Amino acid sequence: MTRRSILLLSGPNLNLLGQREPEVYGTDTLTDHVRRAEKAAADSGLTLSHLQSNHEGELIEAIHAARGVESGIVINGGAFTHYAWGIHDALAAFAGPVVEVHLSNPDRREAWRHVSVITPVADALIAGVGGAGYALAVQALAELLGPGAD
Amino acid sequence: MTRRSILLLSGPNLNLLGQREPEVYGTDTLTDHVRRAEKAAADSGLTLSHLQSNHEGELIEAIHAARGVESGIVINGGAFTHYAWGIHDALAAFAGPVVEVHLSNPDRREAWRHVSVITPVADALIAGVGGAGYALAVQALAELLGPGAD
Amino acid sequence: MTRRSILLLSGPNLNLLGQREPEVYGTDTLTDHVRRAEKAAADSGLTLSHLQSNHEGELIEAIHAARGVESGIVINGGAFTHYAWGIHDALAAFAGPVVEVHLSNPDRREAWRHVSVITPVADALIAGVGGAGYALAVQALAELLGPGAD
Amino acid sequence: MTRRSILLLSGPNLNLLGQREPEVYGTDTLTDHVRRAEKAAADSGLTLSHLQSNHEGELIEAIHAARGVESGIVINGGAFTHYAWGIHDALAAFAGPVVEVHLSNPDRREAWRHVSVITPVADALIAGVGGAGYALAVQALAELLGPGAD
Amino acid sequence: MTRRSILLLSGPNLNLLGQREPEVYGTDTLTDHVRRAEKAAADSGLTLSHLQSNHEGELIEAIHAARGVESGIVINGGAFTHYAWGIHDALAAFAGPVVEVHLSNPDRREAWRHVSVITPVADALIAGVGGAGYALAVQALAELLGPGAD
Amino acid sequence: MTRRSILLLSGPNLNLLGQREPEVYGTDTLTDHVRRAEKAAADSGLTLSHLQSNHEGELIEAIHAARGVESGIVINGGAFTHYAWGIHDALAAFAGPVVEVHLSNPDRREAWRHVSVITPVADALIAGVGGAGYALAVQALAELLGPGAD
Amino acid sequence: MTRRSILLLSGPNLNLLGQREPEVYGTDTLTDHVRRAEKAAADSGLTLSHLQSNHEGELIEAIHAARGVESGIVINGGAFTHYAWGIHDALAAFAGPVVEVHLSNPDRREAWRHVSVITPVADALIAGVGGAGYALAVQALAELLGPGAD
Amino acid sequence: MTRRSILLLSGPNLNLLGQREPEVYGTDTLTDHVRRAEKAAADSGLTLSHLQSNHEGELIEAIHAARGVESGIVINGGAFTHYAWGIHDALAAFAGPVVEVHLSNPDRREAWRHVSVITPVADALIAGVGGAGYALAVQALAELLGPGAD
Amino acid sequence: MTRRSILLLSGPNLNLLGQREPEVYGTDTLTDHVRRAEKAAADSGLTLSHLQSNHEGELIEAIHAARGVESGIVINGGAFTHYAWGIHDALAAFAGPVVEVHLSNPDRREAWRHVSVITPVADALIAGVGGAGYALAVQALAELLGPGAD
Amino acid sequence: MTRRSILLLSGPNLNLLGQREPEVYGTDTLTDHVRRAEKAAADSGLTLSHLQSNHEGELIEAIHAARGVESGIVINGGAFTHYAWGIHDALAAFAGPVVEVHLSNPDRREAWRHVSVITPVADALIAGVGGAGYALAVQALAELLGPGAD
Amino acid sequence: MTRRSILLLSGPNLNLLGQREPEVYGTDTLTDHVRRAEKAAADSGLTLSHLQSNHEGELIEAIHAARGVESGIVINGGAFTHYAWGIHDALAAFAGPVVEVHLSNPDRREAWRHVSVITPVADALIAGVGGAGYALAVQALAELLGPGAD
Amino acid sequence: MTRRSILLLSGPNLNLLGQREPEVYGTDTLTDHVRRAEKAAADSGLTLSHLQSNHEGELIEAIHAARGVESGIVINGGAFTHYAWGIHDALAAFAGPVVEVHLSNPDRREAWRHVSVITPVADALIAGVGGAGYALAVQALAELLGPGAD
Repeated sequence: MTRRSILLLSGPNLNLLGQREPEVYGTDTLTDHVRRAEKAAADSGLTLSHLQSNHEGELIEAIHAARGVESGIVINGGAFTHYAWGIHDALAAFAGPVVEVHLSNPDRREAWRHVSVITPVADALIAGVGGAGYALAVQALAELLGPGAD
Repeated sequence: MTRRSILLLSGPNLNLLGQREPEVYGTDTLTDHVRRAEKAAADSGLTLSHLQSNHEGELIEAIHAARGVESGIVINGGAFTHYAWGIHDALAAFAGPVVEVHLSNPDRREAWRHVSVITPVADALIAGVGGAGYALAVQALAELLGPGAD
Repeated sequence: MTRRSILLLSGPNLNLLGQREPEVYGTDTLTDHVRRAEKAAADSGLTLSHLQSNHEGELIEAIHAARGVESGIVINGGAFTHYAWGIHDALAAFAGPVVEVHLSNPDRREAWRHVSVITPVADALIAGVGGAGYALAVQALAELLGPGAD
Repeated sequence: MTRRSILLLSGPNLNLLGQREPEVYGTDTLTDHVRRAEKAAADSGLTLSHLQSNHEGELIEAIHAARGVESGIVINGGAFTHYAWGIHDALAAFAGPVVEVHLSNPDRREAWRHVSVITPVADALIAGVGGAGYALAVQALAELLGPGAD
Repeated sequence: MTRRSILLLSGPNLNLLGQREPEVYGTDTLTDHVRRAEKAAADSGLTLSHLQSNHEGELIEAIHAARGVESGIVINGGAFTHYAWGIHDALAAFAGPVVEVHLSNPDRREAWRHVSVITPVADALIAGVGGAGYALAVQALAELLGPGAD
Repeated sequence: MTRRSILLLSGPNLNLLGQREPEVYGTDTLTDHVRRAEKAAADSGLTLSHLQSNHEGELIEAIHAARGVESGIVINGGAFTHYAWGIHDALAAFAGPVVEVHLSNPDRREAWRHVSVITPVADALIAGVGGAGYALAVQALAELLGPGAD
Repeated sequence: MTRRSILLLSGPNLNLLGQREPEVYGTDTLTDHVRRAEKAAADSGLTLSHLQSNHEGELIEAIHAARGVESGIVINGGAFTHYAWGIHDALAAFAGPVVEVHLSNPDRREAWRHVSVITPVADALIAGVGGAGYALAVQALAELLGPGAD
Repeated sequence: MTRRSILLLSGPNLNLLGQREPEVYGTDTLTDHVRRAEKAAADSGLTLSHLQSNHEGELIEAIHAARGVESGIVINGGAFTHYAWGIHDALAAFAGPVVEVHLSNPDRREAWRHVSVITPVADALIAGVGGAGYALAVQALAELLGPGAD
Repeated sequence: MTRRSILLLSGPNLNLLGQREPEVYGTDTLTDHVRRAEKAAADSGLTLSHLQSNHEGELIEAIHAARGVESGIVINGGAFTHYAWGIHDALAAFAGPVVEVHLSNPDRREAWRHVSVITPVADALIAGVGGAGYALAVQALAELLGPGAD
Repeated sequence: MTRRSILLLSGPNLNLLGQREPEVYGTDTLTDHVRRAEKAAADSGLTLSHLQSNHEGELIEAIHAARGVESGIVINGGAFTHYAWGIHDALAAFAGPVVEVHLSNPDRREAWRHVSVITPVADALIAGVGGAGYALAVQALAELLGPGAD
Repeated sequence: MTRRSILLLSGPNLNLLGQREPEVYGTDTLTDHVRRAEKAAADSGLTLSHLQSNHEGELIEAIHAARGVESGIVINGGAFTHYAWGIHDALAAFAGPVVEVHLSNPDRREAWRHVSVITPVADALIAGVGGAGYALAVQALAELLGPGAD
Repeated sequence: MTRRSILLLSGPNLNLLGQREPEVYGTDTLTDHVRRAEKAAADSGLTLSHLQSNHEGELIEAIHAARGVESGIVINGGAFTHYAWGIHDALAAFAGPVVEVHLSNPDRREAWRHVSVITPVADALIAGVGGAGYALAVQALAELLGPGAD
């Protein structure tokens, strides 16, 4: 029996988590968040791999590489969420379910954060749960995947 | 030791769940959803009470009654989400955390569903996870409440 | 042979018809209008029941109750026409044809009356015919229903 | 005793009715629609003449010629509905009542069909009743004309 | 000699006054405000009755009932101020003067509070005077009513 | 010595002048206006020919025919002023000066009359002078033409 | 014991009050209005000085001079209300309370009168009370000032 | 027999005419323009007085002083045309006819010059005729005044 | 073996090609362009017929006549491109492929040329290639038609 | 004699051609498209080099490198078309002609694809011709280059 | 050898510098700022004269007087920056370079401060440098003037 | 005593300075500009390091690396200025002062250059000073840093 695997993507500046604007994003580091996501994945019988990048092109190519390999994607696009239509198109070409996640609630912040180019290609959205968000997003993805055939 | 309690509110037309547009909302009834939410609450050591209403005034008054009684609120405002500022003001006067939940992802539907009057007073947002949404919202609320003092 | 029945709904302030702004709405009372609609229904072999309410929730629940019972709905939403998306969602969950009717022509009045939340879920629209509007709306509904199987 | 007469105008492309996009406009030809309108006119003691044109100027001139001759006008402006202000001005110079009619419900179609340059000078509006629309529009016009003095 | 009477209406959530966001609305309760309004009314030789409701339909019906009975209306629509066109239409059908009152100055708060559906049918507007606002609004109404015939 | 000649163009519905909405356009007929324009032209040593048409295509072709023949154009586009970009392009291809004239002042009427597709290709604009407008427009054109070489 | 003093400012064209558009502004002259304001000030134990000016610069400089001298300002900005940001900045630099007053209700007039550059720096707003407006505005200012220490 | 008199007003920067941007405004000085206007006035049996000012307040007060003294006003508002609503209100309080004049055609220049606050209170508009514009504007005013009673 | 035929349509003012604004449209006449299109058609085994008209109605009727007769249409709508929805509706009723062509690139010219009412019903778009555009458009149409069955 | 060379650029996600949304983009791979473009280039006596990149910076640098080396550029910007102004600026700094190409017709797809940041610096545009588009774009570029001097 | 001279203009309310909103504008007085500007001018071999005014007309006339006298202008328009098009026109008629300066960064403050009517006629812009801004603006002007001929 | 150091960042296409659109950007190369900035830094006792990149990700990572190392940042974002919110977020996470610099004045160029995503996180702005801009920006940064502690 092989475990199904999923991909967790983190966009620009998320490598600074825990250091940048802790009143907005909390004090956990990205490693803390990824660890919780890995645990949630394991609890759902899923393997999780993670990539953080400040380069739109690298995220696009990671999504390409996930085609036919990963069962689903959880993505926190960071600032790319609001203009990087190249990521939108890449996700549109990915067949599995996609869950968009944000630590804070973008609709309660500046107006430019209210528009997401990822939402039109995301199945589900989790926002504003802070430290627990990544784990809930993995759970949501597990729900959308349904019980595996393995 | 007393359990902390939370309030689950369902807005107009949600009493039709399972019968209305199943391709959008799925075939589970509201009772099915509430039961899952109750189970998730119990798993987090919380008691949950539920009210569905097609009347904005009743929802406002339920939120008033929750002041000082309930620890937090999970709300699926239904269509009221998009214009009922009276509910917004009532939630603004509630001290505990608020989680907004939607079965589908409103930002992928008609334009008028893209604006929420609840989001500016909601701490977290869970959307598009379908049947598992209510349980995840309760989990998110439990996270925001943190471990109880009881 | 049983007659098919239809539901006529009148929104807020329409109970004042004949008293309120007669230069816009004419001098007929709501009772006069309903009587004409009943006659037009009878002429088409239909039974008509009527509800006027100033409460959005009551109109929503009347639409719920009509599911599987009434063959079609004629609705003059009054001011609710322009913001009560809860009625929109209720009508969307009603399987039969819906005819929207207005005594005056909203597009010739204030700008806020130019947008209707009912039109996206209405099959037909009758406006500006004054006293004869309700009867024509019933006729239109009869046309959309087609000849009954009874 | 002379019958009063009314004018029915059909705008561009309506000569294709029955052939063009039958899923939107139905399979009846323009002749079928006009025949029903004539019958409805006769039932109301009115004579009806009809003109279809793909030329804005011809429709304008037909409205001019109707001044002092026809008691009222029913008009389906086709695409001219949405930009031909010359027709608007011509109708504004016509003293009798005007009824705007559409086979489908333009507010449920593309955004550019949501604005009508005819509505500001039309007394009544009938839309979305399909094959029965022309007859209902004639009835509406008869109502607006009231009982003739002849 | 009979005193003329006026109606004071308070919209949703105003029953929480004194408890909700005191930095915006102050610490006086609704009862305190009503008492001051009653005193101001008495000073102007007017009787005042008051209704607070969280239900749009109840406010509409109170306005209907005031037709021919009350000389004028003072209304603090609360959140209904910004979308409840049904109240607008009810006030439009009320013959006497209408004064709109707000404790804070809505134009200095969130953008959605800058539009009032009551202003188009209100003769006067009093905003931002806090605790003294209700009394000033009653005085303004007394001015608009002029000296009574009684 | 030959006189220079100019073209006066009148758009749709202007043939009704004197009959249509006299409170807006006055009681003079188009013939009255043209006669005054002819007199003003003669006073400036110009010959004037006139065309009224309800057909955009005819006006376009009259402008084409004027190329190299007429020294300048005075145009009252009627409703075409606000959408007939074909006339705009034709005037752009005419080398001589163009004067736009309106009997009333369009900027004081409905919003759709505030935009002119002729203004971007017109040298001068005369509006709101009523009966004297055509003569002033001819004078303005004579000024723009300067003294003739003939 | 010294009386506290306040400043009443009247913007452009208000010197014409009583002569200009009496159906909008009433027949009282500015002197009548100021006299009522003085009486209301005296009733509240305040001294009032008044300046009317058609020059934005003079009003700005009067506000500068009031710094540290006047306890509060009542201002009817006239047309300056809608564009004179220089007055906005001057009021922002004044420490005491500011009450904006209008004889008519600007939100019921032309669209350009719906935006006020004074409201963002005004504590309270009194509009539409006509002749009694100035006195009510002074009362409102007295309320905002609270009982004097003198 | 006394001549009727009219007022010619010139707004900010027009004192630079002939020096400033001659490719837009020509090489005539303001004195040249006023002289032509005086001649046109004399030809129509009118006396003309002129004021140029760079101060909005002075123009407002000149309009006030013209009430009951001057028969009509010709105004080139210069840049004030586009924002000085105080001049709009002053002109609205002037009973006689008003003619707006511009040397160039503002609708062919920058977007901010396309909106005029004077047009809503101007009877007629003359633009783009360059050096002859002032004289034509005086002629237009003479037409609107009609033959004098003197 | 019969050749398939296609229709080339040219809108208003295109008869002036080579004379009008050569810096935008080049010096080739319409005849030159049509000749190149005919050659390109012949190279693809197609017959081409051409119509230029300044009348929207004539273009609509040519499209009607092409139904069932022509295999495809190449259209340069000229100014009609930007408002003539009647042509849009006619093309929507044409079953074969449609190619929109412009000599210049409208998106680089005035804002009103950026919106095309033809694009929503055109399969392909060729713009800005100047003299070679008509031939490329015919080639594109040949591609969309695929190899003929003949 | 040396051949002139041109550069073909393909933006993000185009490496997936043939796999991604074949109902929109067809089943040809990017290699197929490039091969056709190479053949069209050879037919016009041009050499073609190609670069696909998912990184905006790489495309910018390829355009820089083409300065003084390549005679012209054909670019399918993919999603970068709609926001990557850095590519716009790079193309603006390239002296030769630029042809923008899209397999589908972006103006018929989602609204965000209707704005192109490349169009303002592109000489020509080819869209919606599917598999033949790249070859037509090369032909268009050859036309714009004219016959080579070599 | 004569020194070249430049003009420094300060708009409304800037006379309050050091007293008004020190958290935005700092505690330096206008005299402090002017002194620094004079020193920077002297360092660049320039003489500087300064005018502060709360009257738009005075600033316009100072710009007129500077024509042919001053080599360049530094201007902090204060609130006039955002609506006083009369100053825009005056600066457009000034031949030398213009530098716009703001102590704070207007684009980071209220939305109405984001539009400047001075920028379209300013060569350079210095904002947000606080106390050092005037000196930097003078340096920038010296750069734009280049080395003097004297 | 150690010198404080600052970072100068140059966005996409700025490596072309001196070659690209010299009428807009001048003929100095980026090396020339950096050299002047270095000299200005040295004059203020600062060390300056410089990075130019056409890759948004590289600029983000340079800003990350500057945290705790550089005292301040001067940035010319090039085209990234107008959409690269990832750079905005990176700068928001940098504690020291930020100065935005542009050689030309973006507010006087195309509309899309009027919005900056950097301004909301920049302390100061220098634009339009051409060759001297980088040095002035360094001076501004030195002012914002104040005298060093070293």
